[in-house]
This record gives sequence, C-alpha cells and structure tokens, in this order.
Amino acid sequence: MNIWNDGKIASEGYASGPAFIVQRDERPACTDKIREEEIEEEILRFDQAVETGVEQLRKLLEETQSLPVGQAGNADIFAGHLEILTDCTLYEEVTGRIRRDLENVQMALQLSADHFAAAFEAMDDAYMRERADDVRDVERRLMLILQGVEETAFHTLRETSVVVAADLTPSDTVRMNMDLVAGIITEKGGVTGHVGIIARNSGIPSLVCVGPILSKIRNREQVLLDAERGSIITSPDRETQEKFCRNAAAYRDLCKKAKENADLPCITVDGRKLSVCANAGSPEEAEQAAAYSVDGIGLFRSEFLYMRQRRFPTEEEQFEAYRSAVRSMGGREVTIRTLDIGGDKGLDYFQLPKEENPFLGCRAIRICLKRPDIFKTQLRAILRASAFGRVRIMFPMIAWVEELEKALEILNVCKKELREEGKLFDEGVETGIMIETPAAVILAQELASRVDFFSIGTNDLTQYMLAADRGNPEVAPLYNPFHPAVLRSIHHVIRAGHERHIPVGMCGELAGNIEAARLLLGLGLDEFSMSAPSTPRIKQELRAANYGEAVGAAAEALKSPYTILG
Amino acid sequence: MNIWNDGKIASEGYASGPAFIVQRDERPACTDKIREEEIEEEILRFDQAVETGVEQLRKLLEETQSLPVGQAGNADIFAGHLEILTDCTLYEEVTGRIRRDLENVQMALQLSADHFAAAFEAMDDAYMRERADDVRDVERRLMLILQGVEETAFHTLRETSVVVAADLTPSDTVRMNMDLVAGIITEKGGVTGHVGIIARNSGIPSLVCVGPILSKIRNREQVLLDAERGSIITSPDRETQEKFCRNAAAYRDLCKKAKENADLPCITVDGRKLSVCANAGSPEEAEQAAAYSVDGIGLFRSEFLYMRQRRFPTEEEQFEAYRSAVRSMGGREVTIRTLDIGGDKGLDYFQLPKEENPFLGCRAIRICLKRPDIFKTQLRAILRASAFGRVRIMFPMIAWVEELEKALEILNVCKKELREEGKLFDEGVETGIMIETPAAVILAQELASRVDFFSIGTNDLTQYMLAADRGNPEVAPLYNPFHPAVLRSIHHVIRAGHERHIPVGMCGELAGNIEAARLLLGLGLDEFSMSAPSTPRIKQELRAANYGEAVGAAAEALKSPYTILG
Repeated sequence: MNIWNDGKIASEGYASGPAFIVQRDERPACTDKIREEEIEEEILRFDQAVETGVEQLRKLLEETQSLPVGQAGNADIFAGHLEILTDCTLYEEVTGRIRRDLENVQMALQLSADHFAAAFEAMDDAYMRERADDVRDVERRLMLILQGVEETAFHTLRETSVVVAADLTPSDTVRMNMDLVAGIITEKGGVTGHVGIIARNSGIPSLVCVGPILSKIRNREQVLLDAERGSIITSPDRETQEKFCRNAAAYRDLCKKAKENADLPCITVDGRKLSVCANAGSPEEAEQAAAYSVDGIGLFRSEFLYMRQRRFPTEEEQFEAYRSAVRSMGGREVTIRTLDIGGDKGLDYFQLPKEENPFLGCRAIRICLKRPDIFKTQLRAILRASAFGRVRIMFPMIAWVEELEKALEILNVCKKELREEGKLFDEGVETGIMIETPAAVILAQELASRVDFFSIGTNDLTQYMLAADRGNPEVAPLYNPFHPAVLRSIHHVIRAGHERHIPVGMCGELAGNIEAARLLLGLGLDEFSMSAPSTPRIKQELRAANYGEAVGAAAEALKSPYTILG
Repeated sequence: MNIWNDGKIASEGYASGPAFIVQRDERPACTDKIREEEIEEEILRFDQAVETGVEQLRKLLEETQSLPVGQAGNADIFAGHLEILTDCTLYEEVTGRIRRDLENVQMALQLSADHFAAAFEAMDDAYMRERADDVRDVERRLMLILQGVEETAFHTLRETSVVVAADLTPSDTVRMNMDLVAGIITEKGGVTGHVGIIARNSGIPSLVCVGPILSKIRNREQVLLDAERGSIITSPDRETQEKFCRNAAAYRDLCKKAKENADLPCITVDGRKLSVCANAGSPEEAEQAAAYSVDGIGLFRSEFLYMRQRRFPTEEEQFEAYRSAVRSMGGREVTIRTLDIGGDKGLDYFQLPKEENPFLGCRAIRICLKRPDIFKTQLRAILRASAFGRVRIMFPMIAWVEELEKALEILNVCKKELREEGKLFDEGVETGIMIETPAAVILAQELASRVDFFSIGTNDLTQYMLAADRGNPEVAPLYNPFHPAVLRSIHHVIRAGHERHIPVGMCGELAGNIEAARLLLGLGLDEFSMSAPSTPRIKQELRAANYGEAVGAAAEALKSPYTILG
C-alpha cells in the first residue's frame, strides 16, 4: 500500500479502479545526422507526417464541433493546432534544419518545436505563453506519427479505470472514452489548467500536481482516488478499502441531498439568511448558473468580452452581453466586475508593458483609470444593461480612496451622458469594490462609506498579504487563505462593512471551499459567490449550521497566530 | 522659463549653471549592405576599432585603479568591458554578420550587440541583466570609434555646468572632470542606478528619471537644479532665481550645521532620546559609517558576501567579515540581516527558479528555511562574531509565526553546536525580524512576544500593501510609503512592539526621508536607520523636534484616508 497526499484537487469526488498508465516516449528515436543524399527523402517523411497530422486534426475538429456547447471549446484548440501545422513557419524551420544542418526529421522536429515553444514562453503574455503548449502538442502528434506509434494508447482503455499521466493534452482528453474514465491523476498541471476544466465539466474526480508518481504505480494496479480530501492510495488493504467506500458513500449521499435541496433558501438552523451566488465568466455561464437556483451572480467577469476577439469590444457588443446575462437571471442581482486584465491576464491586441512582477503592476482599475476611454465604453454598456434587471457595478484592485473616487467620478460622467442622450439605465444602480489589496483592508471603514457593497477577493488578497504568488509552485506551501492574517483581514472588512450597513460578500475560491463555510459564516459574511456546481454543497453546509455557534467558533479561531487549516 | 517636477532625487542638493548637453548619435551612419569584395576591408575596420577600444579601456582601467577606494569600484566595470571586447564571442558574431550577411561594420556591430543584450536581458537574474548594459557600453564605444567621433565630448566641458543627458554610462562618468560638474540630470535611470551612486559618492546634486527634457533645453542655457524638492527650471526669471538662491543658501546652512552637530546625541527638545543608525552593505561601509557618529548599524546587509564571489562564502569568510564590521563599530550595536536574495537579487552560482513574480516568490528567509545548510553556515558565523561586540540577528520576509519559530529553532541548534565545539559567542545575542509583509503587520503582537526587536522595512511593506512593484515605472505613482495604509501599519507595529517592551526601528528608505522624520517620531519610532551620509540631517531634524507635538500631529495624520505626502 502506498499513499500520496500532495496533489491538488482539480475536481471533487471519489474514484477507484485499476490504474491506466499513460506512458509515452516522445523523444526522437535517434539523434544521428543524415547524409546529404538523404535530404529529400527525410523531407518527404515530414510531408507525409504533416499530411497525416492534418487528417487527424480535421477529424478531431469535426468530432468536437458536434459535441454539446460546454465541451465544444476544444474545437478552438484543434483549429489552432491545424493552423500551426499548415502554417509555413514550422514547415520551413523543420525542412531548413534537415537541409542545412542535416538533422534527421525527428531531431529537426524536436529542435524546431523547442525553438518556437521557447520563443512563445519568453513572451510576457499569458495568451502567447499558452501557445507554447500548442506547439508541444503538435510536436507530440507529429513525433508519434513519425515513429509509427498510434496517436495514443487510449483505445486500449476498455474497462473503467483511473487514468494516471504525467500530464494530459487537449488531444488526449478528447481521445479518451470518458465513460470509462473513473478518475484522473496527473503529475503536473494546476487546478485552473486544462485537465481541471475538463474534469470538472465532466464530473470526473481529479487530482493534479501530484508530483512523481508514475514510476511508483504499476499499470492496472488498484487505485483509490479521494478527491475530497486529496489523497491517492494504491493496493489498499481491506480496512483502508472499506473506509474509502464509506467515505465515498457518505460523499455521494451528501451530493444527492444537496442537489435535492438546491432550491431551498439558504437559512441557518437559527434563522440567519445568506445569499449564495455564482461566479460567471460569460452570458452562457450565467445562464447555466440560473439552473442552480442561485441568488444571483456575485461575480460576472467581463474579461471574456475582451479576450474572444482581436480588438476592444464596442459599447453595443458589451451591452448585448451584459443584458443577456441580466435577463437570464430574471430579476436576481448580477454583479459585473469592470475589466480586470493585467497580472496573469493579457490581451494580444493591447500590449501591456513587460513587467518584472505583473501581479504588482499595472492591472485592473489601474489600467482603466489610465485609459478612461476604454473604461467609459464599459461603464456605459453596464449602465444601459441595468435598465433590464438588477445590476451592481464592482471595481477591482482598489488600493487608494483616491482611485475609488476617480472611478465613481467617471461613472457619474457616463450617467450624465446617458441622461442627455435619453438612454435608459437604473438610477439606483449600486456600486461596490473588490477588497483584494492589504491597503483596502486597512482603509475598509473609509471605503465602506463610499460604496454600496464589498466583495472580498481572497485569491489576490492572500497573495499580497503573504507576499506569495498564487501561481508559483515554489511558494505554494506559503500561499494559504487560512493564514490568520487573511482571516483577521476578512473579519475586519466584514465589521467595517456592517458598521456602515453595507453587505460584504466573497468571490474568491475560499467562498466555495466547504471547509471554510462555517468559519466564514461565523465571521459574518453575507454573500458567498463561487462556481455554480459548488453551490448546492455550500448551501447544504450553511443550512445545517448554527450561526450563533459559528460566531463563537470563529472568534476562537481568530485568536490563534497559527494556521488552522488549508 | 520652463519647469520640470517629475524627476527622482538621486543625490540631494542645489546646483545652477549653464547646461552641458550630452547629445550623441550612436546609430549606424548608414544601413547599406556591402559588396562581397569589401568584406575583408570591413573586417579590418572592426579589427582596428577593437584595438582602439582595448587601448581606451586599458587606460581607463589604469586611471580608475589609482583612484581612492570608494571610486575604484569602476575598475571592475572596465575590466568587464575589456573582457567582452577581447572575447571571441562578440568578434565572431560581428565578423560573421559582415561575411555572411554582407552587413556594413556599423550595422553588424549594432545587430550583434542587440542580439547579446537581448539574450542577457531575457535572463532571470539581475546580475546577468546588468551585463546587457555592459554590452551596450562596449557597443557605444566601438560605434563612436568607427564613426571617428571622439569618445565623448566631455573634453569640451570647460566651465562649471549642469550635465544633462539621456543617461550616463560608467565610462562617461569617469571621463567627466567632476570638479566642473555642478549637477547631473538624466532622462532615464533610477535612484539606485549607476548615476545615483556616483552622484551621491561625489556629493553632486542629481535628478534622474526626469523624462523627455533634452529636446527642450538648449546647450549652455541657464539651469537651476533643485534636488531637495525635485525640480528643474531653465532660463529662470529674476524672482525665481533669487528664490532659488535663498533656498540653496538655507540648505547649505542646514547641512553645515547638521555636520557640526553630528556628534551630539539625538534628543528631541522635550527629551526623547532616539537612536540614529546607518545601513551598511559591507565591512568597508560599516567603517565609513562609524565616522558619522551613528548609534550603530541598523541594517547590515549580508548579501555582498554572497555576491562578490562565484560560490557560497564559507563560515570563516563570513565570520571575518562580520567580526570586522562589529569591531569597526566599537561596542555599538550591529544588526546583521540574514541572507536576503531572491526578488530582484540573484546569485549567479545559485540558480533560483524562474518566477513570474519574483517579489512574491522564493526569497530571503524562505530560501534559508528550504536550505538550512546555507542558513546554518551564516548563523554560526554571525554568532561567532557576536563574541566581539554587540550583535543583533535579524530575519527578513517573515510572514508566518511558524517561519520565525523554525528560524529560531535552527539558531538554537547552531548555539548548541558552538557550545559543544567550545566556540565563543554572546549568549545574550538579540534576535529580531523585519516587518515587511502585510501578514507580519497583522500578526505584530504575536511576533513581538517572540523576538527582541522589530525593524520595519518600508520598501517591501509599501509594495505589498499597495500591490505596486517598487521598481516598476508603470505603477510608480501608486508606490508611496506615505499612503495611509502604510502609515497606519507602521503605527500598529510600533504599538505592538511597545506593548511587549521591544524597540521598533525602521531601515527602509522612509527612515532617511527628511519629510518623514517628524511623522515617524510622532508615530513612536525608536530607531532610524539609513545611509550614513543622511544621518546628520535627520539627527538635526529630530533634535529640533518636539516629541509631544509630533505625537499629536501624527495622530491627526493617521485619521486621513488620503495620502498626505510623497
């Protein structure tokens, strides 16, 4: 029996079954140079491989395009791969290396892919860096074709198994027969990466970023994957197996009950009413969220509008999107966050300066205040959408009272303009801010007197508070939202809000963390906003809680200078 | 009359005089390709230029080596340039471009320098990135030789002038007759850059990072440089000129008086005694600081030991350096900060992982706790030095109580080892921490009960508190230690320290800021630590202050949610 506890939960749940090991060698079979007279033959090999690759991708593209909306996103990925494969840049690089340097085709492919991937990786733009992964995926595809290996071994997946891999590419996950995948374990990857998204969308329990494990699991060895607590056990003894089954059953019951009760209002046993909302990244997600009987959209991210095309969206385009989200929530609150680019989010048509520490750089409201033209277009669109439902406007990354005042001033200019143009909007539209900088925590009282609501963004707040990048594996053990400084900050912000009679919500990942629910309840949080599928469990947990008791327990937790959880 | 207020003060003081514009065109004179038959001739040109460059650098090297200790650091720079110039890498790149691509020699030089500079700039290592500047300096030297332009026009500097330049290279500043340089203004550069260091060392007032100004000043136009407030005025009217002279005279009087009184203890008019210490980066700087009658070294940076050679320093090497610093302070306190690399400080022999946000990454105590071998070597050396004077040990970047406890535990192991080995150390050696993460501010009470002193590091604290990188010009207006959240944090930390009866110091740049002195006094700060040359002015200011009044004023300042200064 072996136990691992180091992975990150990408998708909650329990899975057991034989391990299906995805083990591939994509290095060139041989590093020898070719002779001059072999050049043309080698190039022909590459031509044929490209042809086969194009065929494979066209087929994948067709398959994915016919999938339901949620999974069709993969089609874009394969279209991108096709573009790389048919573009002359890669072709010329590879054939150049064959012709000029007498590299064999596999070496030429590897060196060329290294070259392009490195160039993409060096770019200070998250979108472009992701292109490096695409190059790697195309490289893998061609390499396997050149080696005569079938694209992947996934056709040998014939019984329900727990897939274990170093990492999985988009091509891999589409090739797998998901009906036979009980769980997914990867050595690499992050919770927000591709595997995590696929796993959550398909409801498959998954642990990622587990570290070296492939060498310690045999193919078809029995695996227990506990993606509720985050552990993996191989070749379990009987006692462990039984305990696992009990936990899994309890978890299933919990989920079932939570779903049955999803429509009930969220009121604690002693009568405190809470608002449980969903985060959404597009009108489509808002529509899906509506199906979960949430109390509203606590965070509507507007970035998608800016990322799905190669120019800034017009006021009309934005207005349509916001109105669509507002309408799908039918009178429930929709909190629209103004543009939050910079940090780890770039736009390829809006060059942000290269920064040594982008998370401490020009992002979110800082960009909007520097570019009031971009900001005003968005604010006008949001205001106009407010005529069609209950809209709240939320400014991210506020660190100065002066910034908030400036943003509110620009909002007032937009309102004045719309009035003069005779365009409708909700005169009572509420405004609020994200509390995600330590400075905003300290100025919470003064900020509270200037807005209608707060929403705590624990992801950024934690990283600034602890000076630990949330995406950096080197400091992952130091990034912990349960750190007492973060909890005390949350408490301080909630008190400051309540003193000024404004509600305080949370839209960071902590809000959807089942282990944090009672603690946050006890700290006085009014609104919990998270990914829609997490809402039934959190509602269930809060409905079972006693507010009075939670307050006492939270007060006790705040006293400790040590970290209690996480 | 024109006025600029945007520069950063690199070296305080007043200067006036005619502008001496350093205007150079270092772009290739012509971009035309050469003919094949011209290749050898073009390469000969490059050979000759290199030869001349080598001669120039050898001469510069000799000149600088004979300078007094403080300025001899330049010798290293020129030795580095010589190395670049005589190394075959640059030579082969340039001649390759002439031969292969038929570039003319100037174009070949520019393209080659671009190539190498870009490669260095892309490295995630501050030391290597600085090498890009060296490549540029060598490029400029060769380009001017190739264009037949004399190295610089500095020989035409014949009367006392205010030098105005886009930027100045180390070569430039050595070439200038400093006796004729009244002040220095540069469009680019930062306070901590080369120009700033030279200007401070030579006592020449200087504003850097002024922005586009060259096109708006005529050569020999009258310039008033106020590097006390940070303004530049050209062609002043009579009234402005008179006011400038009055300010300059007042400043001179102030400095004179401050120097005369430097030896007096620092006690406010109503009797509060303060400690004014120096920051030092090497035993030599500690020795220089001793001449300023400081109360001790408030921050002894240990990084120099790790940066001046290509391997980790041994315990003996460190012990010698610490002991030397301790001895030069003759019984006064020396606060040694344990290794603070990472962030913007790299070591070329200790590869730190490439990080997206190094300031939020693995740095300082985080590295030491991951590598207790490195940490223990240093702690043992510091402990042994404590037998020779009054040593305090300070841990940087503490964000968790757990980190502090772990560090103290390792310190105790070292003490135990030394006892067993019969090696002497001060059993009463005091330990403290830098308060530079927002988490440490919030946990100040609990941290205070575990240490003997606090030292607030305002540089990092400000950047984390406001999520604004202190080195990023894009967010420079947002990086401000006078932000109310920073001031309230300072106040909170001082109160927490005093409740536990431990002294609270400050070693960030704010401590040496004359405008902050009374405010910090009023907030209750016990110890001010700064660059030694700033101590007389700060002492003067504090001696003239009334503590009681300062407390009242500070309490008033804390109430404002707006930023009062900076």
